[in-house]
Amino acid sequence: MIDTIKPLAKKTDSKILMVVLDGVGGLPLDLNGDTELATARTPNLDALALESQLGQLELVGAGITPGSGPGHLSLFGYDPLRFVVGRGALSAVGIGVKLSAGDVAVRGNFATLGEGRVVQDRRAGRPSDEKNAEIVAKLRAAIPEIDGVQVEIYTESEHRFVVVFRNPGTPLGANLSDVDPQATGVTPLVAHGHDAVSEKTAELVNAFVTRAEAALADEAQVNGVLFRGYSDVPHFPSFEDVYQLQAACIASYPMYKGLASLVGMDVLDVEGEEDALDGKVAALRANWDKYDFFYFHVKKTDSTGEDGNFDAKVKKVELFDALLPQLLELGPDVVCITGDHSTPSKLATHSWHPVPVLIRSAYGRKDAATRFTEEEAARGTLGLRRGTDLMPLLMANALKLQKYGA
Amino acid sequence: MIDTIKPLAKKTDSKILMVVLDGVGGLPLDLNGDTELATARTPNLDALALESQLGQLELVGAGITPGSGPGHLSLFGYDPLRFVVGRGALSAVGIGVKLSAGDVAVRGNFATLGEGRVVQDRRAGRPSDEKNAEIVAKLRAAIPEIDGVQVEIYTESEHRFVVVFRNPGTPLGANLSDVDPQATGVTPLVAHGHDAVSEKTAELVNAFVTRAEAALADEAQVNGVLFRGYSDVPHFPSFEDVYQLQAACIASYPMYKGLASLVGMDVLDVEGEEDALDGKVAALRANWDKYDFFYFHVKKTDSTGEDGNFDAKVKKVELFDALLPQLLELGPDVVCITGDHSTPSKLATHSWHPVPVLIRSAYGRKDAATRFTEEEAARGTLGLRRGTDLMPLLMANALKLQKYGA
Repeated sequence: MIDTIKPLAKKTDSKILMVVLDGVGGLPLDLNGDTELATARTPNLDALALESQLGQLELVGAGITPGSGPGHLSLFGYDPLRFVVGRGALSAVGIGVKLSAGDVAVRGNFATLGEGRVVQDRRAGRPSDEKNAEIVAKLRAAIPEIDGVQVEIYTESEHRFVVVFRNPGTPLGANLSDVDPQATGVTPLVAHGHDAVSEKTAELVNAFVTRAEAALADEAQVNGVLFRGYSDVPHFPSFEDVYQLQAACIASYPMYKGLASLVGMDVLDVEGEEDALDGKVAALRANWDKYDFFYFHVKKTDSTGEDGNFDAKVKKVELFDALLPQLLELGPDVVCITGDHSTPSKLATHSWHPVPVLIRSAYGRKDAATRFTEEEAARGTLGLRRGTDLMPLLMANALKLQKYGA
Repeated sequence: MIDTIKPLAKKTDSKILMVVLDGVGGLPLDLNGDTELATARTPNLDALALESQLGQLELVGAGITPGSGPGHLSLFGYDPLRFVVGRGALSAVGIGVKLSAGDVAVRGNFATLGEGRVVQDRRAGRPSDEKNAEIVAKLRAAIPEIDGVQVEIYTESEHRFVVVFRNPGTPLGANLSDVDPQATGVTPLVAHGHDAVSEKTAELVNAFVTRAEAALADEAQVNGVLFRGYSDVPHFPSFEDVYQLQAACIASYPMYKGLASLVGMDVLDVEGEEDALDGKVAALRANWDKYDFFYFHVKKTDSTGEDGNFDAKVKKVELFDALLPQLLELGPDVVCITGDHSTPSKLATHSWHPVPVLIRSAYGRKDAATRFTEEEAARGTLGLRRGTDLMPLLMANALKLQKYGA
């Protein structure tokens, strides 16, 4: 898709607003009942639906439940089966670390080592997040770099931490063996690279292990590190490169900011706690003139679905509905409302069900939809599509795509 | 699809029932009239449709009329454009022969040879099936093996027979030239292999021709053999391997049993003649606890369509409808009803029209369908999809797929 779109994209003054209601697709609690969206009272969304075309998106493929990473990449036009972001990189992105092509992100566990470096506890007694941060601070001081390669160390939670190796100019490989023996009573393994660029990474990893153990020698319990799950970072052609868009991310959770930065969006500051909807609106308003694409993320529609709390999810939809007029009054040329995956309260987790999508522009055809619900979306004139179809449709509706062929 | 699904599949206790009404899609006799499905009185299917989501499947692609092989492979999740089963293998499978990767199946014609081995009749006067079987028995006695390679010979019908060469441990190739000159007045050709593994097969084929002519020297008319259409068998990753499913086939015609065995299903014994619907239900009931996936095949919806008998096809649909409650009372977690291709009575043959599909699980969204008809299916919320989308959807509805990415 990206390869087809890129030569057609052109710069114009029109503005696109993509609102992602995280996990917005739902299910009825009883067969043939109403979903969360259909239950919510949404006068503003209803009015918007009357002027819009609706449809359904499958983010990864039929029956496949998308993680937030693949779901968002699909919405941004990057085929999630081609642009695979590994566990290590997602952990890093998930705590807000900015990654570039050529970096390697590694998931680590703190461990307890006994006599002769034998692994006694692969999770170091599950330290508190505070203890984790204390250990990370020690390691940062002890290992700022190895052989000229930048080393960044981050707390994830409990025994989990993330290391990012950056060697600007010379990409590192991520095809190497684990340090974690996945057993106790044995010593940590020595990492081996499976190709030339990964041999360098293996050297870095082994040196890290040695230096970390030296730095933690005075610790009773958290005195070793184990690694598994190495990820390099696929090269993402940027939003500007592919779409000629100056794109801004308005989100408050690290994972989403990290994903947006992977594709080259500017991540705007948002004031406020948690979902910070008012702060997000303020950020949108303050930056309206500076960008032509806005990714506006709403998290709580997913969190409440994950909690299995149908009524709370309904309320979060209604909360967004109340906010919607403030977004629309900025006058975006193209408005899109959709989700990165479904999170039905009934399942209390992400699901495979297609997400509803709504597009309003001056160039829509007639659509019978009177509400933004899964049922109306399934009858919508946009049809059932892959998630990667969305960006070309938004670009087209913004009159930002040239004709293909003469 | 298979490559994406395989790492996500997980084993659970839920059970999937896939009913294939062979050739179930139809056409109205007059434009805007009712199809066979719409004409049939189907109270049980109607009730099921009320609780289900409907859609349409295109088994191979737009406008493409699927044979039964590609149609079924698509329903089972194997892209029929990638997993190509050649004519020889389909002939073998069609008469119920179990094939494995590395085997070669060959279509043969009995011929009449005159003086100097000149072909006089490429079909040996179209012998009866009984005569064919008598000749096959002679050949089986004369050629049980060649050079340690197993040789199996089967009657197809009239002048047609099938030979399967099996060389366990050393796969045979199927890239060789024909023995059949496709003309009379000339001698049979000598087969030549086009690659190393097929040279071995060519030797086997040529030896078979010589020994067959010797064994049939006392026959007046059926005294020669001609070969064309060699097929090796693609490796099918099994249902267990791909989906973690213990799958059972409940069918009574050899072709369908053969296709199911190609993908590693257990083929259950079914008592009774022809379509043997009661025997099939009995087999389903008897084996309900032993499997988590059941492929349940109904043949006569196709046969009556092939006969161009609209009313008879309607009756066969009604016959299945009467049976449906016995299937549902077993309590499958996911029920699917669909077809392997359309066979409209109006065309009296397979057609390219999408087949209707119905899925019922606890995790369906609202769908306006009140009947299982082509017309309602075309408005269904599952949309129009490739046949290979079906298995992921059934797996998802059975909660047998893990999330893709974090």
